[in-house]
Amino acid sequence: MSRIAYVNGRYVPLAEAAVHIEDRGYQFADGVYEVIAFLDHRFIDADPHLDRLDYSLKALNIAPPMRRQSLKMVLREMVRRNFLRHGSVYMQVTRGVAKRVHSYPDYMDSSLVMTVSPQINSPADDNPDGVSVITVRDNRWKRPDIKSISLLPNIMARKLASQADAYEAWQINDQGYVTEGSATNAWIVTSKCEVQTHPITQSILSGVTRQRIITLINDARLLLKEEPFTVEEGKKAPEAFLSAATSYIKPIISIDNTLVGDGKIGPITHDIIRLYGAFCRGQT
Amino acid sequence: MSRIAYVNGRYVPLAEAAVHIEDRGYQFADGVYEVIAFLDHRFIDADPHLDRLDYSLKALNIAPPMRRQSLKMVLREMVRRNFLRHGSVYMQVTRGVAKRVHSYPDYMDSSLVMTVSPQINSPADDNPDGVSVITVRDNRWKRPDIKSISLLPNIMARKLASQADAYEAWQINDQGYVTEGSATNAWIVTSKCEVQTHPITQSILSGVTRQRIITLINDARLLLKEEPFTVEEGKKAPEAFLSAATSYIKPIISIDNTLVGDGKIGPITHDIIRLYGAFCRGQT
Repeated sequence: MSRIAYVNGRYVPLAEAAVHIEDRGYQFADGVYEVIAFLDHRFIDADPHLDRLDYSLKALNIAPPMRRQSLKMVLREMVRRNFLRHGSVYMQVTRGVAKRVHSYPDYMDSSLVMTVSPQINSPADDNPDGVSVITVRDNRWKRPDIKSISLLPNIMARKLASQADAYEAWQINDQGYVTEGSATNAWIVTSKCEVQTHPITQSILSGVTRQRIITLINDARLLLKEEPFTVEEGKKAPEAFLSAATSYIKPIISIDNTLVGDGKIGPITHDIIRLYGAFCRGQT
Repeated sequence: MSRIAYVNGRYVPLAEAAVHIEDRGYQFADGVYEVIAFLDHRFIDADPHLDRLDYSLKALNIAPPMRRQSLKMVLREMVRRNFLRHGSVYMQVTRGVAKRVHSYPDYMDSSLVMTVSPQINSPADDNPDGVSVITVRDNRWKRPDIKSISLLPNIMARKLASQADAYEAWQINDQGYVTEGSATNAWIVTSKCEVQTHPITQSILSGVTRQRIITLINDARLLLKEEPFTVEEGKKAPEAFLSAATSYIKPIISIDNTLVGDGKIGPITHDIIRLYGAFCRGQT
């Protein structure tokens, strides 16, 4: 059975899902997106994702395509029509269709598109495999806090990772700090057992999973350190991991081919994975 | 009569011209573009534009959609079917359609889309009106030498210009230098009568019109200085102008509300406009 997409008010077979070539998302990357994980018939942290969607839309002065209640109805309808059990829903809002000139009209009907991505098994695994990361220069524009579809540097970084048989590429800014991965937030555990990640600035995306992890860390009275770290600090750290809505939490076992710790999942990482898994399964 | 667009092998009415929602141009800004001016039934500098298209495609590892001779046939067919006399042809190449994951497959059929933009009067005016520019922070990614559709910072800059009743926004990098406008190259004429513009680096787009102007400057034995300049140097310059394929050359009469020179078109700018106009009309 073919998957169903949502395109501007209509549910259509994915194969027929199309937008106009003068949609500004296609010609100018003039749009934003969110991906919400879906686990055992439940959305994970839907509201924080929709809050961030509002933040991104406002930052770019794009009109919300509909009210939140309606958006949630479309989300539910999408998982229903696609018989989704585990997976994610991708939603993209662009400024809409206009004659191609850089400056945009003040009032436009924004475009809303949604697709689902099913997964067979539950992705919230308490014992996930460790992954490798490489490091690349952070080539992105100066506002990655906006979750825009302007993702060219991210995909080039991720391609380099995949060519190196790594899961992710950590991006290094001009000051030598790790900002974040191409589609995940970056974390280390220091020798003082502090769980460290880049603070929220305009230089990184404020990850919804990142924020949830921080809440769980605080609730569990683990130590949190929101400060940038260098690649060298990452390589010397006893533990490292990454997080994102659809990646969940993955232990990192090597950075640029240097083993992290003993190359096995560390105890604090394991604790956080279990806490997040329990949260996702609704046990907290 | 409705305009005709070209979409992946078919000539279709613009209103019906669509691409799949999983075209990577729509989801990742994973594509490049060119705009070629068309004046009195002739393309201006088509080959340098197609050379740059090749450069951009190669930089992103996107397969050319067809050979150059075929691309030229489509260009000619587009102006013929649209009865174009003056205007421009926009062409966009994206990596094509694939399931949405950041890293891209190595072999993909790229997408090619073209549209035309007609103009009633000849845009190669020897006495164009002067325009104003504002300045903004250069927020772009670190590879603006690639003519990608990742244009979000450009459109935000151009919107600010338009809100300030200016034609263009000059982008200022972290070192305080003017890199270029949101869709045009930036030029000043110094008090020593040197025509100055930012050198070709990864920080600016290598403008086809910019390169043509340099050839004309050299042929006319005017003085050329390919060095970055600051906003202050721009404001103190006796003359300033901007250039791009569809903007042609426009004299700048104010920068951030400071008059350039006496606010009238300077003599060297006027010479260059005439030289470029003559080139476009095929008189050189």
